[in-house]
Amino acid sequence: MSDPAGHLMAAEIAEQPSVFARVLAESRGDVGEVADRIRDADPRFVLIAARGTSDHAALYLKYLVEITLGLPCGLVSPSTTTTYGATPQLRDVLWVAVSQSGGSPDLVESTRVARRSGALTLAVTNAPGSPVDEVAQLRLHLRAGRERAVAATKTYTATLLTLWLLVDAWRGGAGEAAEDLPRLAEHVVADDRVLELADRFRFAHRMVVTGRGYSYPTAREAALKLMETSYLGAQAFSGADLLHGPLAMVDPGQPVVAVVPRGVGGDAMAPVLASVLERGGDLTVVGNTALAPGVPSAPVPETEPELAPLLEIIPLQRLARAMALARGHDPDAPRGLSKVTQTR
Amino acid sequence: MSDPAGHLMAAEIAEQPSVFARVLAESRGDVGEVADRIRDADPRFVLIAARGTSDHAALYLKYLVEITLGLPCGLVSPSTTTTYGATPQLRDVLWVAVSQSGGSPDLVESTRVARRSGALTLAVTNAPGSPVDEVAQLRLHLRAGRERAVAATKTYTATLLTLWLLVDAWRGGAGEAAEDLPRLAEHVVADDRVLELADRFRFAHRMVVTGRGYSYPTAREAALKLMETSYLGAQAFSGADLLHGPLAMVDPGQPVVAVVPRGVGGDAMAPVLASVLERGGDLTVVGNTALAPGVPSAPVPETEPELAPLLEIIPLQRLARAMALARGHDPDAPRGLSKVTQTR
Repeated sequence: MSDPAGHLMAAEIAEQPSVFARVLAESRGDVGEVADRIRDADPRFVLIAARGTSDHAALYLKYLVEITLGLPCGLVSPSTTTTYGATPQLRDVLWVAVSQSGGSPDLVESTRVARRSGALTLAVTNAPGSPVDEVAQLRLHLRAGRERAVAATKTYTATLLTLWLLVDAWRGGAGEAAEDLPRLAEHVVADDRVLELADRFRFAHRMVVTGRGYSYPTAREAALKLMETSYLGAQAFSGADLLHGPLAMVDPGQPVVAVVPRGVGGDAMAPVLASVLERGGDLTVVGNTALAPGVPSAPVPETEPELAPLLEIIPLQRLARAMALARGHDPDAPRGLSKVTQTR
Repeated sequence: MSDPAGHLMAAEIAEQPSVFARVLAESRGDVGEVADRIRDADPRFVLIAARGTSDHAALYLKYLVEITLGLPCGLVSPSTTTTYGATPQLRDVLWVAVSQSGGSPDLVESTRVARRSGALTLAVTNAPGSPVDEVAQLRLHLRAGRERAVAATKTYTATLLTLWLLVDAWRGGAGEAAEDLPRLAEHVVADDRVLELADRFRFAHRMVVTGRGYSYPTAREAALKLMETSYLGAQAFSGADLLHGPLAMVDPGQPVVAVVPRGVGGDAMAPVLASVLERGGDLTVVGNTALAPGVPSAPVPETEPELAPLLEIIPLQRLARAMALARGHDPDAPRGLSKVTQTR
């Protein structure tokens, strides 16, 4: 008997609480050493290079660095180096390359150039000994275990946790706020209410996912999962950007999923939710369901606002998988994709 | 008799060659002075704050700064300041706020905080005396004239030209490469071949627009115009990012528009075009039509690769307007939008 469609993705989604526990138990030593090296170097700017799902983890790191460390931060376009041959001046720069496989040629090459240009380089991968590992001075590993489904799930949240631990160690913390994550994540992976939404969205052909601040990366990653697995035209916008133009295309014919954590990031979504409802948009809320009572929702337990993205993506991963299955697709093996994408 | 739907947008699109001529004739003095001030300050990092269409001009500036000046550059999330109260360390940073209206509260506030945090601040707006003008130490004006259509067209290309002139002056140039732009733009606004595409896309409900390097901002801006005016679910991806996941949702049922300039940026799109065609995608090329012969296309005359985005957006603006009209919408007044969006 062959395994049912989507069993890999299901297993990897369900594994996230134990991956959190493993990262918390085993990664703090490495993270502390890397944080010490970074503090010694005292970088004044942070650049992050990544693609696909890792790019959303990079965006999360950008918010963390800007908000909690007060350092300016940029997401790198690897093509400036690999296509246009830019020769950057990177003294006082921390360069972070984030990649599940550590193998994409543009990432490896741009990291090599960054190191030569004076940056302190750190590779964050799930693949010890990968090409980008070899190129960078510092490295952190995700300890997520092998990921077999093409759509990344456990490596995404393991990356978020590793990056959060790094920033927390950098600012002198010991990661205490994350202690409760495995337990909370168990809660989220066992809450099937989100699956009812898959039914409502069965015939949607496009969708808008929106969030602000720390939860904007969640919106981006959720949209990517939906595109990869159910082939939906899913578009992500920060709440503010949605109001600057794209709002015009929102009508009752397509769902809007808003990621609304507790705290100031979620509160800043209030005018966005109001605008969507005013236009007759079909609104669903993931996270703090109190901000828009009466609409379909998937609640997520409360945590530190910085850590909310580690939980709130989980129901959205499950939604993407359920929608793919409802449409007759195998979410473990999206058409036209392979696990490692090679771009130059 | 009232004016026909879309007459404002048509007039402003057609005005772009004369706006280019005016900017070239009148802005170089101001640009040179600002460039001198920036060179004196010798910034080591560039941050850019913008929303909506201006955010795509910001992305263009990011590529210019990284590639031609070799300086690390980041796009700012204003919410880190306005929502989360971040206190950034911005010594040696040039902060560029780009805004047609110069009035969005989050932009004004984050620029005020940036100046207080040690950045050299520059406002680039079409509104002399606007709030962000008052806050910044340096300012440049677009000279685009009043823009009345809600969907920005001439202010977008005027921003690109002003930013290009600034970077060119910063590196010691005198803007010669842009001399030919008004004439080339006349050519583009008079070439009606792009309008035939509007007919083919009449019943499309979603679309992918893709480009790499300097042309990735074009893809982003084209997608926004299509969303704003024809309410199409238009999604933009850099060519490399498209291959990292979203490619799975590309099928013969939705068009893929690729922006392919001449030079290395366009050549780097070759594997992307091949992947789309391999999947049976419906491909259209804007720019260098030689890379994918036989597919529907809108050619754009050759120019310096850095300046290609100033021309290649024009057929896409015209396409968005034509598609809106074909669908019975007034592209001058998209539903639910106003000219100045206020976000916090």
